[in-house]
Formats: sequence, C-alpha cells, structure tokens
Amino acid sequence: MMNAPIRIAIHGGAGTMPKRLMTPEIEAACHDSLQLALQAGYSAMAKGGTAVDGVEAAVRALENAPMFNAGKGSVFTNKGQHEMDASIMNGETLDCGAVAGVSNIKNPVTLARCVMDNSEHVLLLNDGAEEFARLHNIVFEDDDYFFTQLRYDQWQKAMKKKITVLDHVDDKKFGTVGAVAIDAKGNLAAATSTGGMTNKLYGRVGDSPLIGSGTYANNASVAVSCTGHGEFFIRQVVAYDLHCLMTYKGMGLEEAANHIVHDKLKPIEAEGGLIAIDAKGNICLPFNTPGMYRGWMKSEADYFTGIY
Amino acid sequence: MMNAPIRIAIHGGAGTMPKRLMTPEIEAACHDSLQLALQAGYSAMAKGGTAVDGVEAAVRALENAPMFNAGKGSVFTNKGQHEMDASIMNGETLDCGAVAGVSNIKNPVTLARCVMDNSEHVLLLNDGAEEFARLHNIVFEDDDYFFTQLRYDQWQKAMKKKITVLDHVDDKKFGTVGAVAIDAKGNLAAATSTGGMTNKLYGRVGDSPLIGSGTYANNASVAVSCTGHGEFFIRQVVAYDLHCLMTYKGMGLEEAANHIVHDKLKPIEAEGGLIAIDAKGNICLPFNTPGMYRGWMKSEADYFTGIY
Repeated sequence: MMNAPIRIAIHGGAGTMPKRLMTPEIEAACHDSLQLALQAGYSAMAKGGTAVDGVEAAVRALENAPMFNAGKGSVFTNKGQHEMDASIMNGETLDCGAVAGVSNIKNPVTLARCVMDNSEHVLLLNDGAEEFARLHNIVFEDDDYFFTQLRYDQWQKAMKKKITVLDHVDDKKFGTVGAVAIDAKGNLAAATSTGGMTNKLYGRVGDSPLIGSGTYANNASVAVSCTGHGEFFIRQVVAYDLHCLMTYKGMGLEEAANHIVHDKLKPIEAEGGLIAIDAKGNICLPFNTPGMYRGWMKSEADYFTGIY
Repeated sequence: MMNAPIRIAIHGGAGTMPKRLMTPEIEAACHDSLQLALQAGYSAMAKGGTAVDGVEAAVRALENAPMFNAGKGSVFTNKGQHEMDASIMNGETLDCGAVAGVSNIKNPVTLARCVMDNSEHVLLLNDGAEEFARLHNIVFEDDDYFFTQLRYDQWQKAMKKKITVLDHVDDKKFGTVGAVAIDAKGNLAAATSTGGMTNKLYGRVGDSPLIGSGTYANNASVAVSCTGHGEFFIRQVVAYDLHCLMTYKGMGLEEAANHIVHDKLKPIEAEGGLIAIDAKGNICLPFNTPGMYRGWMKSEADYFTGIY
C-alpha cells in the first residue's frame, strides 16, 4: 500500500466577475469559500478517505456556498426553476455516475456518487434521477433553499433582454464547480457540478454531467474537471482529450493541459478552463478567461486560492 | 472541390437474436431493412446531399423499421413508455446535436439534427427537447405508433422476472441503430439512435446521445457510431477513443477499431461493436458479440448486409 502525498485542487468556475465590480468583501468571501472547500476535501482524505471521498466533500462545500453556480446559488432557467447537473469518476476503477436536469437535490454530486455506487447505470435524467434519489435517502431542499437574490436579478435581466430570442443566451456567467484529487494510495478522482446557464431553455445540458467532456479520471494518467462554455467542451471531448494527449501522445500534464486550453479552445473562442492532477500529484489549473475561481491544497499549511 | 467516392455504413445493433431462434423470414426481413436504409442514405448523398444528409436518411429508415430498437419499435421503459435518445455529428465543422429521454418523436435523429442546425446547444433533455421539437415542426406520433408486440412481450417478461430488482436488467437486447458516411466532398458524419434498455428505470441514458461516447465524427480521422452495453461505452469514451488512437497514436482504422472492440472492451465484458469510416473511405465494422446487424454500400451495385 502506497503512502503518497494527498493533494486536491478545485474550481468555482471560469469567467469570474470583472475586476471593476469586485469588492474587497466579495473577494475575501470567495477566498474563504474556496479555502473551506479545499479543507473539506483534504480532511476527508487525511482521515483515511479515498480520492472519491475527497472530491465529493470539496464539491459539496462548493455546492453549499451560495456564490457558486451549483447546488445553493444555482442560476434560474427560463421557467424560473433550478436544473442541476453533476458527475463523478473514480480513476482506479473507471466507475462513474452522473445526473442531469435534477431539481431540489441539495447536493447533486452526492446523488451522482449514489448512482455510481448503487446502480449499474452511469447517467440518470430529471425526475427519474429524483425518484432514484428518494429511494436512496438523498437530501432534498425546497425551492426557497436554492433562491439567491443575485441569481434572481441575473435571470430577470436575461429575461428582459432576450425574451423573444429563443436560442441565444449571452449572459455567460459560468461558475460551475469541480474538484480533482489524489489520495494516500495514489488513486485519482474527479467531480463536477453546475446549475447550467442563466435563462436556459429546453432542458439544455452542458458538459458538466458528461463523462469524457466535463469530467474524467484514470489512474493511468489524470483526473480532470472542466468549466466553460459547455457546448465547445462537448464537441472537443475535453476531459478525455487530456487523458489521450498524455497517454497516447506522451505529453506531460502541463503541456497537454495548456495545449487544450490555449491552442485548441482559445482559437475557436471556447472560453473556459480546467483543473487537473496527474498520477504523480502534479497540479495544473489553466484557463483562457480573465479569471477562474480556483485553489489547491498539498498540506494543511501549503495551499493556494486565486481568482484572476 | 473533391469528387470522392460516396460511402455509407450502418448498424442495427450488436447482440442479435440467437441463431437457433432466427427464421428465414425474419432474416430476410432484416436484410431488406438494412438494404433499404443503405439505399436511403446512399441516395441522399448521390443526389448531392452531404454526409450529414446521408446518415440522417439512413438512420430515419432504421428508426422507421419496427424491428430495430429506435423510433418505431423502441423498447418499453419500466413505466411502459418509450424514451428515446439520438445524436448526430458533422465531421467537417464538429457541429453536433443530441436529444435524450424524448417521447413521441417519430424520428429522434431528425430532432438531434434540428438541435445541431437551429440552436447553439448540443444536448437537450426530455420535455424541454419536445418543446423545442414542436417549435421546429418536428413530426410527433402517438403512443400507438411506437407499439410493437415483440417489445411489449419482452417488457412483460422483464417485468415479471425482475419486478423487485431495481438496478439490474438482464434482458440485454440492444438493437440501437447508427450510420457513418463520407460524401462526394470527402466530408464525414455519424449518427446514432436508440430506445435504450427494456424495462429501464430512472431516466437511464446510455452512450447513444453522448458525443464522444456513442457518436463522433471528425474529417481529420473518422466517423463512428457505437452499439452495445452503454455504460461501458461511456466509461471508455469509445467513439472519441477511436479518433485519438488514430490521430495521436497513428494507428490505422482497422487496427484502432479492432483494438478497442476486442482488446479493450471484450476483456471487461463490455459487449458491443461499432461502425466506422475513415477520411479515405475505409470501412470497419468490428463487434465482440455473436452478431451485429450491419451493412455498407459503396455504389448501387456494391453493397453488403450481414447479421452474424
């Protein structure tokens, strides 16, 4: 049994608010929330938990923080609802679980893990996923829990500007959350959770619940969680692309991750970023937006949080 | 402008009925349906249509044939409904569209194409996708249209055997359909459509509507459509894996496709197969099941259909 160094990295979404709107109070609150999430994930593994436990704990903390677009604080759909997506993957076994379009689930990442652990399926949708959640005693919250004034105002603004425009939403607030980790046995895991796009229509789903696009983990290479304009991340199969560039092409983590974010995504105006941790514990957090809420922790005393 | 040879390949699912149950009548009907679908796809391209037109036409024909598990003839869910998934991808532009969990849509592949052509999104779910379909005059059919005695009997049998078993369905009739094509300009496209698993629960979705897992097309390498036990195809990101093995590792189509189906999927008991066509027009149809309904057409006079 290995005793590798425990490490975790997280994101709270690429595409942060412009610097001119940022106040010292909001900035401090963001750093605090990121630090709490890192601590939650790190502690879970320090107590003997797996990398899966670590990423689940970190993403739960980010879902519970109202400032990020996942769990509490999720954006409003066109109908004034909250439809959330999440996924999780175990790099040791390649087991994975995901849910898309779920409402009233307090922690979608925990439901995704429940799908992974307690069903033979990978991806469950909407009320089917909620039915599965009830059978497994997953925690539900009423609509009020998910309400935040900021997201409501953003929705109202998007509605007013775009009320007759059916297929274009330009309020591209991301704020998806995610975590990647390596545990003491050297196993990798990744998880992602999101409330999707403000004012979204038609049950639109982005890359967050899609294994290979928004989330991927494989002990042979890397654990990765993505954030950005989801449609591009689906077309480019971003998360699995990182694995393939490392495994088939022999690129290192840094080279492969930067190649994807800056050379492949940036030229096609695919805004976003990713967080990744490789089998040796190297961490890479590239993004092509002005900022990405992010952080990593290598020990209780050695950690980083950043926004721009 | 190139004037490349038009080619198309199709599948009607890996995991065919056992040879001992096959009658000459059923066998002939299968070959006829496959040939009609090949003809539909080939003709669309011969008349100047694109590879996208070709795969859409072929998959529509397979959806309309009641023997395959897609469109008419889709299997029953646990609640006696039909929930269908489909996806399509353009290898020239990497544009793609997909729908999951849709009911009463006559041709899910055409709805997936409509998402690709008329929205900025890739994947729409359930009633959101149906709302989008109504806005774009997609053809709906009532429940009776989708009823087939065979699928009803299979559902009743699955219900009886497994009524208290929530997460395991061993009636692994696949019968997903798909097509890949190269048009006269040398552009590639792929499409996949399915009714999912008999007696499926909780809005389960397999690989068919997932870009990179069940469907992928890229002029740089290959167009591919998968069929089989979807959860494994999601974990292995099979369709994009074929692209990566060819592009990053330099494998030829035959070597890469056989490697995936026989060396990667077979050892983990992931039953299924795929159809693929590369940028040079080479066709490969590997499967690790006793059979796969399949076929290809290189000209009106040069075609093949097979079951075992």
